[in-house]
Amino acid sequence: MGKVIAFQGERGANSEDAVVRLFGEVGVLPCPTLERVFQAVEAGEADGGLVPVENSLAGSIHETFDLLLRYPLHVTGEIDLQIEHCLQALPGQSIEDLKVIYSHPQALAQCAAYLSRLDAEKVAVYDTAGSAKMIAEEGRRGAGAIATARAASIYGLEILARGIQDDDQNFTKFFAVSREPAPYRPGGSRTVLVIGTANRPGALYESLGSFARRGINLTKLESRPSRRKPWDYIFYLVVDAHPEEENLKETLEELEGRTHLLRVLGAYPR
Amino acid sequence: MGKVIAFQGERGANSEDAVVRLFGEVGVLPCPTLERVFQAVEAGEADGGLVPVENSLAGSIHETFDLLLRYPLHVTGEIDLQIEHCLQALPGQSIEDLKVIYSHPQALAQCAAYLSRLDAEKVAVYDTAGSAKMIAEEGRRGAGAIATARAASIYGLEILARGIQDDDQNFTKFFAVSREPAPYRPGGSRTVLVIGTANRPGALYESLGSFARRGINLTKLESRPSRRKPWDYIFYLVVDAHPEEENLKETLEELEGRTHLLRVLGAYPR
Repeated sequence: MGKVIAFQGERGANSEDAVVRLFGEVGVLPCPTLERVFQAVEAGEADGGLVPVENSLAGSIHETFDLLLRYPLHVTGEIDLQIEHCLQALPGQSIEDLKVIYSHPQALAQCAAYLSRLDAEKVAVYDTAGSAKMIAEEGRRGAGAIATARAASIYGLEILARGIQDDDQNFTKFFAVSREPAPYRPGGSRTVLVIGTANRPGALYESLGSFARRGINLTKLESRPSRRKPWDYIFYLVVDAHPEEENLKETLEELEGRTHLLRVLGAYPR
Repeated sequence: MGKVIAFQGERGANSEDAVVRLFGEVGVLPCPTLERVFQAVEAGEADGGLVPVENSLAGSIHETFDLLLRYPLHVTGEIDLQIEHCLQALPGQSIEDLKVIYSHPQALAQCAAYLSRLDAEKVAVYDTAGSAKMIAEEGRRGAGAIATARAASIYGLEILARGIQDDDQNFTKFFAVSREPAPYRPGGSRTVLVIGTANRPGALYESLGSFARRGINLTKLESRPSRRKPWDYIFYLVVDAHPEEENLKETLEELEGRTHLLRVLGAYPR
């Protein structure tokens, strides 16, 4: 039996594109929520999961970071996916035939300039791939969906226009998660960790200094409420190093003494 | 004519509670979106606005930070409001009479433990105060809303239970915004600023060092996509100092040379 990877969304979602890019042709387990992805991996219903952590235009997906802390899984890889929105409809129609266009509100917003030139109503639905599925299942002529090329192929729709997003710098970064950590491979790694520093002046700065003094590049810094008390924070960091390498090993030992929370969420080849 | 303060939401929203706490009894201008608040203040339709920036459980409200950067307004104050959810209904009913309870999904989630003990359906609507308004306007008996005590008073509903949230550490921080900066008052200030550092190892750490070396306390650090290119960030900082004070003045001069973006969004007495 082949590998199964869980993702959030309907078949044909952007996440499924990312699964195929990172894992090749594997089995997929579509999940209705992000938390279901974590549950499915933890319970062994899937061999791994792929979850969005950040969009280059909209920013971090905080729910994913919160779930990384709550579930005992390991981040084992990352992938950046360029988002390409395709206008699609039941076969044999032209763009002029479309009276209504369905998609997720964020996708509609990202294609606003293109859509403003069409004489069709825009209707927000829960999911990009879900809009393609709905048009196919209900046989809705005169209706278009904005979704991936993969969705068009899965649901038997025809692509009428490709790459209709206003901004081509639209990427989503995904983390692969697994029950087991990725094996260490020398030659460039990335580590995801979370720290909770003392709530006093300079505490975060000192902790960042532990990395900076050893020449460790910080590629991401994200604060979240600690939920211990109001206006107290934890920080998610992504650094270019591996816990088995001397510089990060020393940093982690140093942080151990001055953080109330320190957890490596995963490390993987860059 | 008295002062008018704009806020996002229906009359009786949590934001209106915060307006009264910070400004006393002033005129209010309810706005359907956060951006409308900024527009109303910029256009002079309101003397100021009050916008949520962070919730102690859910984290930062990024849209507000993005709008602070896009509009030429000044942050002139802040206030922390403890969120107290009240179950309310048309007068003359008991809790047992309620068959359905309406509120914003986040409010329903924050009262999950209390609601699980009631035999009523939970239905998500767009707004807490909006649910109270709807019950009043449509004369819906058997329906409850979760909203502020102020909403009950405005819409003529009766409060059946107060403070029904699961977690009492539920605060929302608001910023006051205005067309003019707040005057400087010695004796403890707070400054909100945004910086864009070079995308190279240690750049953020060096910038934070400019504050730390001068003993300036950093109370908040929030990263957002720069939208210049993918995975490039800007950082919103809140520090305990004022640009007219020597330590922050020097810091800002130092940052000037090594940031591509540096803007003081406002300073106000702490």
